[in-house]
Amino acid sequence: MRRRGVKNLQEKLDNAKENIITDSSLIKGKVKTLYDFDNPLYVEIGCGKGDFLIEHAKRNPNINYLGIEKFSAVIVRAGEKLNNEHLPNLFFVVYDATNLLDLFNKGEIDHLFLNFSDPWPKARHEKRRLTSVNFLKQYEQVLKKEATIEFKTDNIDLFEYSLTSINNYPMEILKVNLNLHRSGEDIITSEYEKKFMDKGPIYYLESRFK
Amino acid sequence: MRRRGVKNLQEKLDNAKENIITDSSLIKGKVKTLYDFDNPLYVEIGCGKGDFLIEHAKRNPNINYLGIEKFSAVIVRAGEKLNNEHLPNLFFVVYDATNLLDLFNKGEIDHLFLNFSDPWPKARHEKRRLTSVNFLKQYEQVLKKEATIEFKTDNIDLFEYSLTSINNYPMEILKVNLNLHRSGEDIITSEYEKKFMDKGPIYYLESRFK
Repeated sequence: MRRRGVKNLQEKLDNAKENIITDSSLIKGKVKTLYDFDNPLYVEIGCGKGDFLIEHAKRNPNINYLGIEKFSAVIVRAGEKLNNEHLPNLFFVVYDATNLLDLFNKGEIDHLFLNFSDPWPKARHEKRRLTSVNFLKQYEQVLKKEATIEFKTDNIDLFEYSLTSINNYPMEILKVNLNLHRSGEDIITSEYEKKFMDKGPIYYLESRFK
Repeated sequence: MRRRGVKNLQEKLDNAKENIITDSSLIKGKVKTLYDFDNPLYVEIGCGKGDFLIEHAKRNPNINYLGIEKFSAVIVRAGEKLNNEHLPNLFFVVYDATNLLDLFNKGEIDHLFLNFSDPWPKARHEKRRLTSVNFLKQYEQVLKKEATIEFKTDNIDLFEYSLTSINNYPMEILKVNLNLHRSGEDIITSEYEKKFMDKGPIYYLESRFK
């Protein structure tokens, strides 16, 4: 994700404070209290500028969404997009997702999205890949049993790695698609995906813990 | 695999009888007696015209190879290629591999190749796909524990299916490559692969039983 400097970042974050939580400590262990209704909780780690979750939240008012993004200068764009409409089922939090048990309670998440995560190509950074065993262990804790993980990437090396990592965890592969957009179906895309889906295949994997 | 009529098929098979066994009942339960040395046994199911195994057998004289092909009119081409040289570690058998325990003893095979198998796209033909649970069960019987299966295809649907089928058997995925020839490595190819490797990605999967 490219990060340009954002003018008046703090002011913009203040304006979006209804939707963007900049101090994650405020919601630690009580994410569910953000929402008006006790609906299923769908989480995206690395939500970027928020396009993917905004579209999901519009289409599914009975699902609660939380987008996690490490960089406030990126997530502030989601706030700008939301200023024009009220989506009570969608929040964003500025948070570096290295220890999810620090933010979520056990078994709290109903569905997890990982879209176009940083591939961290160097072997010594393997632990930082969001499909490494390091993260799978955490997901297993914070996800409900039977919860599904949906993973999308255009990075062939990261996808090959993820297939092996998820197979060996071991997890169940529910669906794999090696060229997601070839069917022409209506698929909700991230802003990154819109840019790259014509340049090569988008790989898609749906899995859950056994 | 396209099959054209072959002129003088029987005569050509007779000429190649040193290398091609047309009556599989002759070697049932005693495949290993074909070879001069008790070396590891590598098998290819659906070996077509034999290019892949011929090249393997030349490079690895200390491995015994057996190619299985259902159509004598296809495998006869391998015989023609072999007439010019003697490869005592390579045989072909005309055999419809629907029940491998009928040909092999338990735990007899050290390595299995599946190259560009028929995708059998219709759901009602799923059982015929060489990576369906129907076949995985048989491989588990005739392969040694720890034996590896190498699977290659250019068919995206068959590869997606195979990833799911192998993951959920459950088997261990050792390696997955979503564009085998992108590295420019020296890879032994089948005659089908030579034709199609420039037209799109060749998918590759290496796995074994847990």
